[in-house]
Amino acid sequence: MKRSGLLTDLYELTMMQGYLLRKREEKVVFDMFFRKQPFNGGYSVLAGVDEILSILEEFSFSDDDIEYLKSLGKFEKEFLDYLKTFKFSGDVYSMNEGEIVFPIEPLIRIHSSIVEAQLIESILLNTINFQTLIATKAARVVHAAQGNPVLEFGLRRAQGFDGALSAARAAYIGGVAGTSNTLAGKLFNIPVSGSMAHSWVMAFDNEYQAFKAFADLYPDSAILLIDTYDTLESGIENAIKVGLELKKKGKPIMVRLDSGDLFYLSKKIRKKLDDAGLKDAKIIVSNDLNEEIIHQLVTDGAPIDIWGVGTQLVTGGNDSAFGGVYKLAAKEADGEFVPTIKVSNNAEKTTNPGIKQVYRFFDGEGIAAGDLIALDSEKMEFGRPYKFYHPVYFHEKYIIEGYCKIKPMLELKMKRGKRLFPPESLEKIKNRVQTNLKDFDDTHKRIINPHIYKVSLSEQEKKLKAELTDEFK
Amino acid sequence: MKRSGLLTDLYELTMMQGYLLRKREEKVVFDMFFRKQPFNGGYSVLAGVDEILSILEEFSFSDDDIEYLKSLGKFEKEFLDYLKTFKFSGDVYSMNEGEIVFPIEPLIRIHSSIVEAQLIESILLNTINFQTLIATKAARVVHAAQGNPVLEFGLRRAQGFDGALSAARAAYIGGVAGTSNTLAGKLFNIPVSGSMAHSWVMAFDNEYQAFKAFADLYPDSAILLIDTYDTLESGIENAIKVGLELKKKGKPIMVRLDSGDLFYLSKKIRKKLDDAGLKDAKIIVSNDLNEEIIHQLVTDGAPIDIWGVGTQLVTGGNDSAFGGVYKLAAKEADGEFVPTIKVSNNAEKTTNPGIKQVYRFFDGEGIAAGDLIALDSEKMEFGRPYKFYHPVYFHEKYIIEGYCKIKPMLELKMKRGKRLFPPESLEKIKNRVQTNLKDFDDTHKRIINPHIYKVSLSEQEKKLKAELTDEFK
Repeated sequence: MKRSGLLTDLYELTMMQGYLLRKREEKVVFDMFFRKQPFNGGYSVLAGVDEILSILEEFSFSDDDIEYLKSLGKFEKEFLDYLKTFKFSGDVYSMNEGEIVFPIEPLIRIHSSIVEAQLIESILLNTINFQTLIATKAARVVHAAQGNPVLEFGLRRAQGFDGALSAARAAYIGGVAGTSNTLAGKLFNIPVSGSMAHSWVMAFDNEYQAFKAFADLYPDSAILLIDTYDTLESGIENAIKVGLELKKKGKPIMVRLDSGDLFYLSKKIRKKLDDAGLKDAKIIVSNDLNEEIIHQLVTDGAPIDIWGVGTQLVTGGNDSAFGGVYKLAAKEADGEFVPTIKVSNNAEKTTNPGIKQVYRFFDGEGIAAGDLIALDSEKMEFGRPYKFYHPVYFHEKYIIEGYCKIKPMLELKMKRGKRLFPPESLEKIKNRVQTNLKDFDDTHKRIINPHIYKVSLSEQEKKLKAELTDEFK
Repeated sequence: MKRSGLLTDLYELTMMQGYLLRKREEKVVFDMFFRKQPFNGGYSVLAGVDEILSILEEFSFSDDDIEYLKSLGKFEKEFLDYLKTFKFSGDVYSMNEGEIVFPIEPLIRIHSSIVEAQLIESILLNTINFQTLIATKAARVVHAAQGNPVLEFGLRRAQGFDGALSAARAAYIGGVAGTSNTLAGKLFNIPVSGSMAHSWVMAFDNEYQAFKAFADLYPDSAILLIDTYDTLESGIENAIKVGLELKKKGKPIMVRLDSGDLFYLSKKIRKKLDDAGLKDAKIIVSNDLNEEIIHQLVTDGAPIDIWGVGTQLVTGGNDSAFGGVYKLAAKEADGEFVPTIKVSNNAEKTTNPGIKQVYRFFDGEGIAAGDLIALDSEKMEFGRPYKFYHPVYFHEKYIIEGYCKIKPMLELKMKRGKRLFPPESLEKIKNRVQTNLKDFDDTHKRIINPHIYKVSLSEQEKKLKAELTDEFK
């Protein structure tokens, strides 16, 4: 899908023109990072990388776009002419899509002229923030379900049709087994699934006929919605009748619950199904679920086989935005990169200066032990002990030694505006998430009140940050 | 923008095929309504009507879409052939876009074959839910700002690029004065605005130079971001220097605050500006604002002139979904419409049966006094007293008499798949919202703990609901 260069905040364009007209062609380095885990969680899942690389390759201005900008009366001919042939020609360093990521570490690093770096800010943040939010939510929901499949049912409550499509993509990366969104199925090759609505049941003369008609049509995926009238008195009884008929053809039914207390009802229904000899019938539930509710139900031992999650999965629920930001880390002066800092009265919001790399250290058992933000120019020496400095309280430090692996996290993905790797399949990214999650101790993945994984500064980065902060005081 | 017919939940297609193969061509009536005001608010603003009418006119399946459906192995040739030439041919009754709306009343009523009604459910809900959510949020934010302009700054935190575009549209309907989203400006003719990023300030050798360069370039819209280093010690002082220079050219500056305590800082800054002789300089603030924060600042008397609202406006913040639903209200049997009901163990979730109209009653002063859900077949007699029944507790009722106007809310907008009215300008819809809001007592518009506006059932509708509920018990 081609994206217009106008998908940017107006101030990016006014700043661009400012740089261009003042012949400010110097190179800069911007970091994209975030400050706080969403959902009070212990980790996030980076998503949207492939999409942003595609967008950067094609981001451009149509004649129509240029005409519109001209009509605003803010832009000069020289700038508009520049935009006519605009193509992003910078370098992009990024963590892999599907990496497990933490606050303050650069996830994506852009090297380009200041003009280009500014233009792409809004679309970069829009893409990465939303997809990372949803991939993270999905990973949490899937974790809570402890191995039972989760299906994404959110189209009707998603934020626009693209909100629904991007959410389906990100949720799949995060670990869900399928979507109800048919177009997402087609575009992203995600398995699609669905059952029936209450209206199907209401459209027939009675519930049994509705179930029977559905099972006749779809004997291989007979998911019967049993709460249209009365779940325990009517729905499950009619479903069992149809289930016994289908059993003769060797096919199992599924029953779906969309209201009521899911623990109480699933227990009762499981027993009724088992007593009727339908032990292979599955129970699928939905109704404004999220990871906390699923975690509680699983912990309590509710006999639920499949989870359908909609609204909260595709919007993030209470946390409906991922707070990724894009900050200047270095700028060219006299042909060299000079680190920059944004100091804040709130020390946590002071940026980490310079061109940086992130190293993930793994302990003797191969478990992630901590992330180190170092200057890209630092040479890492495998084997030697490393000091890890708290990013704000510099007097707090610890030393990691006896590690078995150091993994550099940022990799050059795009060189002078050209991708260096072909797009990855969603399947591959999805598998990477599950593999990466295994690198982390379970305590970091706890749904409620997780153990905080540490991200620290290297000695050199700490020193630079201290010096630059002092300069401003 | 042409929407694929695949923008639907898979179950809509499986149900459609079911109806089609069983020759179920009868007509049905579906209501779209919601159950609970978002944001604990007193009202919602209906939005997305124009868009859904456009979508319904063009909703269709490409050869590609059909191929994909075929590949799923669930659909028979007869059904796929039907989809190839599918066009929505139903009737749509809707309230006007920009109406002030309340729980349980039908906002949109679809009359069509059961096959068509089912297909459009997901896209109808997706469109109306999201736009209504954001228009409502915007109306609340604008109300809190008490006449000072609100700008929408949410692109980078929106849920996908279309999430950002739809949100800009809906926010404008809800009352904001402009957007930072340049493409939204172009597509919807919304005024665009913006200032500068911290990176602009950091890209120069010092803050004064950065401000000066910006004011030279944009003397008519010199919005200076003053919190990059130190708002009170450095930012405002440099802004004042530039402000005094610009004043000589007869142009005012604006200063923008994006962090810190906005009450404390705006007071200090206003005083500094005034003391320097820059009484016409304006203060614009941003930083994760919502209607509650704005309401508090306005009530406390913070001297803030313009509000920039991003994340919470374009996502809804804590309430990130509008819970609109779509329920069968009547179905054809032997050539006549028979009312249908979905009974729930939770009485509040039992639907209101039959083909319905909504009447808004206005009291002697022209203020909205209550909405009445009546059967469409009821003849309203102006002047006579009307009984208003509580929709769940039927023993609670009140009588309205001495009203000055009864306004029927649902209007036929689309006949046999063709729109009856041309699209409306956003400007017109936006004005309608403001006019409509004046119909309601201020207590309903209170940001926190609003007075609940009553929606009731007519005597006939109450009777029908009671009868049908009894049939199921």
